[in-house]
Amino acid sequence: MPKISDRGCEMPNSPIRKLAPLSDSAKARGLKVYHLNIGQPDLPTPKEGLEAIKNIDRKILEYSPSDGYRSYREKLVGYYAKYNINVSADDIIITTGGSEAVLFAFLACLNPGDEIIVPEPAYANYMAFAVSAGAVIRTVPSTIEEGFSLPPIERFEELINERTKGIMICNPNNPTGYLYTRAEMNQIKHLVQKYDLYLFSDEVYREFIYTGSPYISACHLVGIEENVVLIDSVSKRYSECGIRIGALITKNKELRKTVMKFCQARLSPPLIGQIVAEASLDADPEYLLDTYEEYVERRKFLIDRLNRIPGVYSPIPMGAFYTVARLPVDDTDVFCEWCLSDFEYEGQTIFMAPASGFYMTPGLGKNEVRIAYVLNKEDLGKALTVLEKALDAYNTLKESQKNNKAINSRIITF
Amino acid sequence: MPKISDRGCEMPNSPIRKLAPLSDSAKARGLKVYHLNIGQPDLPTPKEGLEAIKNIDRKILEYSPSDGYRSYREKLVGYYAKYNINVSADDIIITTGGSEAVLFAFLACLNPGDEIIVPEPAYANYMAFAVSAGAVIRTVPSTIEEGFSLPPIERFEELINERTKGIMICNPNNPTGYLYTRAEMNQIKHLVQKYDLYLFSDEVYREFIYTGSPYISACHLVGIEENVVLIDSVSKRYSECGIRIGALITKNKELRKTVMKFCQARLSPPLIGQIVAEASLDADPEYLLDTYEEYVERRKFLIDRLNRIPGVYSPIPMGAFYTVARLPVDDTDVFCEWCLSDFEYEGQTIFMAPASGFYMTPGLGKNEVRIAYVLNKEDLGKALTVLEKALDAYNTLKESQKNNKAINSRIITF
Repeated sequence: MPKISDRGCEMPNSPIRKLAPLSDSAKARGLKVYHLNIGQPDLPTPKEGLEAIKNIDRKILEYSPSDGYRSYREKLVGYYAKYNINVSADDIIITTGGSEAVLFAFLACLNPGDEIIVPEPAYANYMAFAVSAGAVIRTVPSTIEEGFSLPPIERFEELINERTKGIMICNPNNPTGYLYTRAEMNQIKHLVQKYDLYLFSDEVYREFIYTGSPYISACHLVGIEENVVLIDSVSKRYSECGIRIGALITKNKELRKTVMKFCQARLSPPLIGQIVAEASLDADPEYLLDTYEEYVERRKFLIDRLNRIPGVYSPIPMGAFYTVARLPVDDTDVFCEWCLSDFEYEGQTIFMAPASGFYMTPGLGKNEVRIAYVLNKEDLGKALTVLEKALDAYNTLKESQKNNKAINSRIITF
Repeated sequence: MPKISDRGCEMPNSPIRKLAPLSDSAKARGLKVYHLNIGQPDLPTPKEGLEAIKNIDRKILEYSPSDGYRSYREKLVGYYAKYNINVSADDIIITTGGSEAVLFAFLACLNPGDEIIVPEPAYANYMAFAVSAGAVIRTVPSTIEEGFSLPPIERFEELINERTKGIMICNPNNPTGYLYTRAEMNQIKHLVQKYDLYLFSDEVYREFIYTGSPYISACHLVGIEENVVLIDSVSKRYSECGIRIGALITKNKELRKTVMKFCQARLSPPLIGQIVAEASLDADPEYLLDTYEEYVERRKFLIDRLNRIPGVYSPIPMGAFYTVARLPVDDTDVFCEWCLSDFEYEGQTIFMAPASGFYMTPGLGKNEVRIAYVLNKEDLGKALTVLEKALDAYNTLKESQKNNKAINSRIITF
């Protein structure tokens, strides 16, 4: 049997999806599983998007241009302008989800062995795309104690060497919900400028900011226009994860030309998804407001309840719809697995993403989980009750196992 | 400005799409452009697929499983059984087009520097995906004189060294339309077995075979089940290029586990596309027969007319909907560009894919083009008239330029 590639072996399992088989088994046993693991909102897709599907009147579902329909790209210009992001249709390349945008950015910018610096915890799949490109992610840890704010910029600078090609951020941040401040963004800008680095900035959660502080896009940073690669996606803002429509945006012409070669190789982004995404740009402002307010409520509810569970701590996320919380357990990988395979409370259990998969430094985040607040408050409430019961049961079990061991070892020792 | 990656520089431009801007300009000048360049059928998508779109009754367009919906994979089992390809739903991973299947296969199987052997001319994007994976494609030329049959297997064996990890074929072949015989497939099998290689087999055109000879899938070859990676796509068989639904199929469990990690990183294949593809499996047999017969007619018409144009030669393709034809010009790259930028006949021109982009060996295929017969016979007829007129005009122009040069050089010399 021929061998798997080294990168195939190195590829991390998704911390978000690796426990899915256990969740499936739990469901097969008749349990209700609350999905706190995945950023799959339960909020509706805007009706403009859904209607666009019904109105598709084509005889042939044909290829679209490799960089996406011009009409859609032109309409996006107006969308970005609302955020003071000034781009032209030519600056925008439509991709198959934000995922493909990250992959193509890495493939186009990074040689095997090249390094990028990412504050951790970070969206786990950056790691997967870096491995795909043969690139190396170096991380600077942010901490739950500091609310996952940007680590001192000197920590980034210390890692810079001749292989360093870029910095990658996610803002507002997945998994932490942190929103980088103007001062922090300026620190990043100066570093990018000083060492002429790429700045890959994943800003797919810009609709979901729950603080008075301004959203500073990488595209707002004057003087590094040619360095910035913006990653975007409609998945979260319109609850359209399934249509797989994202974008790679850059003012760097040479980079766009290169990315286009990767785009041409895979022919085109999904046709129907583009139709839905384009129509969704006309979503009723009421829809966006409702969605926003719903997340505001959920966030308040979640963080408040989390912090009242004994031993649990979550900082207050400022954006996106995740938080990284600390649990009173040694190893959330074991605990999250146990919740799915060995625990139930009134026929229910929970699926959380162990945070270790979002850290690259071994040992970090062992007692943290990422929780997505993409469920309605009622379900969220039930899920949190299950979490509380699970923590109780788990720690009681651990305690008794320890005692048994102690007894056993005494028996053996005596 | 930070540097583009080496692989980004190496990435080939798509020979199918690189002239698209010239075609757009021609259209902007008011010309009718006949697309012979791209495998975008003008035949309708089956109504079962189109109706499935209308019947989508979801409130949320959510992620699907990373390996695709189980219901779709289970239904595919029956589809493949009709071709005596015996696979289970677990052997099938749904991908974003056949393109992603090739990319993930290469990423999962090939290390940077590893080699695969491909008979050329070959589908140009294999090259692009190999570059993406840092792998090297070695080619064995097939020739128009031999009707693009499999080159002697010894030519393949001569290229095998410690870096050789696989063989890639496309059967029926894009761009040549060749269908590998049972004897040829057995030769490939023995080589794969002898050196324990991967056999990547792209069989997306299996519906379109116009000869009594049997279709031998790589999955029919007994004894190399763990070596075979089947690449598939619904794009061509249902005229659904835009929905981006393909598949990677292998009995090799370890490989599937690895490919799944790449799948999880990009979250999921397109949701709506899967719905359309699943429904299309119920397409009226009449639809498939009509489509088939239409291609039979077009093929006959195209090849017959091509071979009656002075200086043009095309072998008779046995499958797919392409042919590689030889034209009486020195350089089809120049000629194809000229057709789009400098020529018109009664307000029309043609867009063909220069064959050089399908060869890796420099200099091969310089006087060949790939022609897709995806247009109705009337348009195909008009396109062929344009081709005939264009060849005439081009060669007359070349002749007069040569004479002018001769005159000029005489003037200078005297």
